[in-house]
Order: sequence, then C-alpha cells, then structure tokens
Amino acid sequence: MGTLVVTNIGELTTNDPSLGDESRWGRLFHAGLVVDEDEVLWVGASDEAPDADDALDAEGRAVIPGFVDSHTHLVFAGERSDEFEARMAGVHYDGGGITRTVQATRAASSEDLLSGARTRVLELLLGGVTTMEIKSGYELTVDGEGRELDVARHFSDEVTWLGAHIVPPEFKNDRAGYLHLVTTSMLEACAPKAKWADVFCDRGAFSVDEARTVLEAGRAAGLAPRLHANQLAHSGAIELAVELDCASVDHCTYLEDSDIDLLSASATVATLLPGAEFCTRSPYPSARRLLDAGATVALATDCNPGSSYVTSMAFVIALAVREMAMSVDEALWSATRGGALALRRDDIGHLSLGARCDFAVLDAPRAAHLAYRPGGNIVAKTHRSTREGATDRI
Amino acid sequence: MGTLVVTNIGELTTNDPSLGDESRWGRLFHAGLVVDEDEVLWVGASDEAPDADDALDAEGRAVIPGFVDSHTHLVFAGERSDEFEARMAGVHYDGGGITRTVQATRAASSEDLLSGARTRVLELLLGGVTTMEIKSGYELTVDGEGRELDVARHFSDEVTWLGAHIVPPEFKNDRAGYLHLVTTSMLEACAPKAKWADVFCDRGAFSVDEARTVLEAGRAAGLAPRLHANQLAHSGAIELAVELDCASVDHCTYLEDSDIDLLSASATVATLLPGAEFCTRSPYPSARRLLDAGATVALATDCNPGSSYVTSMAFVIALAVREMAMSVDEALWSATRGGALALRRDDIGHLSLGARCDFAVLDAPRAAHLAYRPGGNIVAKTHRSTREGATDRI
Repeated sequence: MGTLVVTNIGELTTNDPSLGDESRWGRLFHAGLVVDEDEVLWVGASDEAPDADDALDAEGRAVIPGFVDSHTHLVFAGERSDEFEARMAGVHYDGGGITRTVQATRAASSEDLLSGARTRVLELLLGGVTTMEIKSGYELTVDGEGRELDVARHFSDEVTWLGAHIVPPEFKNDRAGYLHLVTTSMLEACAPKAKWADVFCDRGAFSVDEARTVLEAGRAAGLAPRLHANQLAHSGAIELAVELDCASVDHCTYLEDSDIDLLSASATVATLLPGAEFCTRSPYPSARRLLDAGATVALATDCNPGSSYVTSMAFVIALAVREMAMSVDEALWSATRGGALALRRDDIGHLSLGARCDFAVLDAPRAAHLAYRPGGNIVAKTHRSTREGATDRI
Repeated sequence: MGTLVVTNIGELTTNDPSLGDESRWGRLFHAGLVVDEDEVLWVGASDEAPDADDALDAEGRAVIPGFVDSHTHLVFAGERSDEFEARMAGVHYDGGGITRTVQATRAASSEDLLSGARTRVLELLLGGVTTMEIKSGYELTVDGEGRELDVARHFSDEVTWLGAHIVPPEFKNDRAGYLHLVTTSMLEACAPKAKWADVFCDRGAFSVDEARTVLEAGRAAGLAPRLHANQLAHSGAIELAVELDCASVDHCTYLEDSDIDLLSASATVATLLPGAEFCTRSPYPSARRLLDAGATVALATDCNPGSSYVTSMAFVIALAVREMAMSVDEALWSATRGGALALRRDDIGHLSLGARCDFAVLDAPRAAHLAYRPGGNIVAKTHRSTREGATDRI
C-alpha cells in the first residue's frame, strides 16, 4: 500500500497523446511512473521521478497499460477438444456444440464453476489482463444464469448477461416460449447482477428481430447493450448494434462495406476475436478495412470452450499482426484502450494522470515483443488497482 | 531420487505401439507409470501400478513424452523486433538480418550469453521440452564459434556447429577465404565441442556445393551432418541431405515432388519449423504431402532472434494443426518421437520400458489441449532423467 515509483522503464506506453512522443500511444523512453494503490500520480523521465513509499527498478523493461479483455465466456464446465479436432479435420463450425457446454455447466457444482473460472482468470491476470468482461450464457435457466453471473461477479464488475446465447434443447420446439422466459423472469433475476445484456445474433442462433427484443428489454431493466454479430454469416446485426448504440459489436468476421461505414460513423466499437478464427479455421475479419475507415477496433480473447479456448491477449495480438495486418502498435492499442472503449470505460486502458494504475511490466525492452515472441508469456508482472478490492477477489 | 510412481493418468501417450491401444501413440487411459531417476520401469493400468519410493497423483491429467526440440539457435545476444515489425508491414525475409545478431553476439560477454541462453532454456523446459538441440552460428570466428558451443554444451548434449550460417561481413569479398577458415581452423577448434555439423544452404547463404564441402569436412572431423534447406527457395539441398544421409533436413518450406520422393525413401527426417513461417509470413511447408508420402516429419521451434523467436513447442503444434493440416496426434508425435529421430536418438521421444524417463504432465485431460488451447502453457510439470546430470545444468 502507499505509493510506488517504477524507474528505468525502457519504453512506457501510456495511450495518452498528451504525454511523451504525443503519438496515439503517448510513448516515453527511459521513463518513470508513480502510482498509489488506486491511480496514476505521475509520469515522466526516469531520472526526474519523485520518491515514493516503494520502488521498482524496471531495468530497461517495457511497461504497457494492463490489457482490457472485453469479451470472455470463462464461466463454464467441461471441455470440447474432440470438436476442435473434428473442425481441424474439416468439420465446419456452426455453434452447435454450445449445447454440450450448457449440459456440462448445468451439471457442475457451483464450487467447480468458481474453481474453473478462477483458473482462467489467473491465466488472464498472469498474461497482463487487468480488466476482463465475463458473460453468462451456459445454463440458460433462470437460476442457472443467475448462478453464472454470481461467479462472474466474483472476479469482475464487467458482467454480461447472455441468456440469449442459444435456444436450449428443452425449448427446441418453443422458441417463442424461450424468448418469453428470457425477457421476463430470467431478465428479472439477472438484471441486478449484471451491467450488460448481450445476444448471439447470427445464423443458427437469434435473429436481428429477436436480438432487438432482448436488448430493448435488457435496457429497460438497466442493462446496457452489446452484441455478438456476423461470426458465421452476414446479417443485419451490425445495423442493429449501431441503431441501439451498443458499446461493442463482437466478432465481425463477415462485414459488408455498408457495415464498415455504419461502424465508422458510430460510437460502437468493433471487437475482433481472432482466437476464434484461429480455432475454427475461419477467415479473419477485415481489421484493415475497419481501421482505414476510422472505426474503433478492440481485440479480446473470446475465451470459451468451443470456439476459442484462449487466455492470452499476447497471442491475440500476435494473430492480429500476423493474420489481420494490424501493426503491433495498433494491436496493442486495441487490446488496451480499444477494450476499454468497448466497455465504455475512460478510467482504464491508458496511463494518464488519474487513470487506474493498471499496468503490465514486460520481460522485454519493447512492447513489440508481444508479437515478436509469439506463443509465450512475456509478462513479468501485472499491477492492478486495489479500488473496489479487485485484487482481493481471486 | 529413487523410484516414482505416477497414478491416475487420464491419458498416457507412450509413442510405443506395443503398449496400450497399440496405435502409433501407444495410448493408455487411467494409466500408471513407474520410473527411476533414469528410465521408465513400468507402464500399465493405474490400479495395477506397483509401489515406489515416491508417488504422484495425476488426478486425471494427460502425460506425454517430453518434447524433443531438435532445432534451436538459442545462444545469441540482442533482439530484432524492429525487423519483425518491418516484415509484418510487408518487407520480405531474406535472412539478411543475421549479421545484426552476429555483431551483437560478438560484442556480448560470455556471462551474458550464458544468462540469455539460460532464460530461453528455462522457457523451453517449463513448456515440456526435455531435450533440445542448440546450434552455434552467431559469431563466425574460430574463438567465437567455440564460445557459443561451450554455452550450448552447458545445457545440452545435442550441440551443433553452424560455422557456415552466413558469410560474415569481414569476408564479404572473400567467400573462399571464409570457407577455408570454416573447414580448417574453425572446424578443428569446434569439432571436439559438437556432435553435429550444419549449414544454412539456401538463396543468399551457402550453395549446395559449398554445403557439401563443409559437411564432408565436418564428417571427417567426427561431426554427423544435418542441413538447413529450402527455407527461402527451391534448391538442390534436399538431394544433398539425402545423399549425405543427414539425420535431418530443416525448414522444407519449398518442396518439389521429387524432394518429397527422395525424403520418403530415406532415413533423413524432414524437420518443419512453422514458427518461422508464422514470424516471416511465409507459406507453410506441405506437411500433408510429406506425411502422405511416408516421410518422417519432426516439428521444432527454430528459436532464434530473427525469424522465429519461439520457445513453445505447444505453439508449434498449434500452428502445425491450424496451418499445416496435421492432426493433433500427428503433431504430438512429430514434436516428440519425430524430434528424437531427427537427432537419431532411440532413448527419447517415447515412454517404452527402458527409455529415458522424460515426460510432461499436462494441466488437461487430453494431449489434444496442446492445440485446443493455443497461446498458453498447459504443461504442469516437466520431468527429466537425471542421467549425465542433465537437470543439474540449468
């Protein structure tokens, strides 16, 4: 507790254009950083850094804002590696395996759900993630969705109710009945536990009209909207997301030019999840077209047991660079500030004065090593604000 | 020390077709394994496992033979992340940056070389690698190559002299002079310190005739041959490798049908290094054509600061599966038994009775998780034989 000064930072990325080199990344070299338990107090040259209660010599290492992983489904039971192997042997991904995770999750004890989620939260933290969004969506019952949200709330304030993930098997012949349940008693039980409402709006999941119904009901109950869209096919989901002013529309694997125009002119972030394209051998989304058109792009893990069992933001960055023609710096921004904007948060994803003191020290002289050394974990230390007891929750 | 029994192994891969399901992977479920400090003593059903001095409950986890990383260049100084970024922005890789690592390595203290190599060796070990080949090739002087081999020998018995990596700048106008140095005083100084001789035989490096000269000189000095070939272009290097009975020919990015025929009919292993294709945005080698033709395929990291700064065999496996259409099981075999064959070793890469007790316990019920959960490290424990003091060397 108290204040901490970090000196000898080889490369400090603040994402604050008023600092350092005044680029979008607000970059300083041979830098220093002072924080208290809550926020950033000072940024400047290492040899001008003021004293503090505690000191850390970064020995030339790079420091970046903590990653903001704005899309995870990390509360689940069971595993689906056999499906992954089948896909790699040529079976097309259509989201159909989600029911298997629903069955396994319903059958799991709350203790096991918490323990499994904790393992994945720790993997994320050790990889430099300081804020993670967590969704429900693997029980699809009133009590079950509430239980998943309770587990999610144990680890994060960014909790999303995804009751409309798929239509569960017992409602196979009563789609309207499931939507009624979702928008009445399930929403009533879940709204107090969540911040966001989300819908899997895609071929084989929910239609644009169904998604609108759920997100409007969610908003009426106090939940801000976000949307899964266009992972499996083109649809009208991007239009819906922009129409409803969703904070983020996620996946965007299939985009028309008109979708890109809409996103560029909106405050809705396009959250790309290349781990899903890697794990389903799908075409990667057109990050370049989005960026060149001026849309805001976030990167996230989509951690889930079906289509992206990924807990490394560095791996996501490496994929974005190798497969989506993003520069390392663009990918770093999207994995930090972009993720924060996808959660409509202004206190994280950057290291301006007064921002949360969430950062990662890398075992590398430059943040570019996040992509240059793919497949490993170069995060030496993850530092998180203790505001609201975040670090006590693990 | 003494004997160790591992029980409750959910899935045990032995790579011994006489064991378990009698597949190529010799797989057992609910299995047990007994080892002494040196070798495998017993394999069978968990509930029939004999007592031992020490016991480990695998709690349903998978166990695999330790990875054999048969191609690394992990003794170096400096970093080249700027080159990686330039490549990702469209600059073509031609091997030209190697001189930068040569300059940095020559300028480094022996202590720093050892310390940098140790970091990378530890990353490999924590990721389940129990045997790693290590090459010289970043000093290209008589004393410097010897110094690199000394560092390599600190960590491994599989040490390769790569004096013919490139022609160093000071011999730019005297190629013949450098080859003379390589095949006389440098070889004389290095032969006692190495097991293998290797040449970078490719466009911009050494020709087939030059490679033959170096490898024949190496063989006369007691060094068995292996070869870098066809990373940058088609050449006659595969023919040369087969002609000289090289243990392995590495990269194989560009292969003609005739190359594949030659490899299939030979004892020369095709070692594929997909980390290099990932990091240079090159086309991946045709693993499928090699496997379908009956060639023996190994997978390795190619850990080096220019074209593949990779220390995770799991990442290599994930790339082999996603990008080279290998099944997870084929990739696992190539990363263990395949690597052992690329080093002409019969005591590692499998868990037959009498084999070295080199294995990894995975935080997963199935080895398939190595690819199903890409970008992370699911190795819970790496166990290595203490024969020849291997584990005391770190």
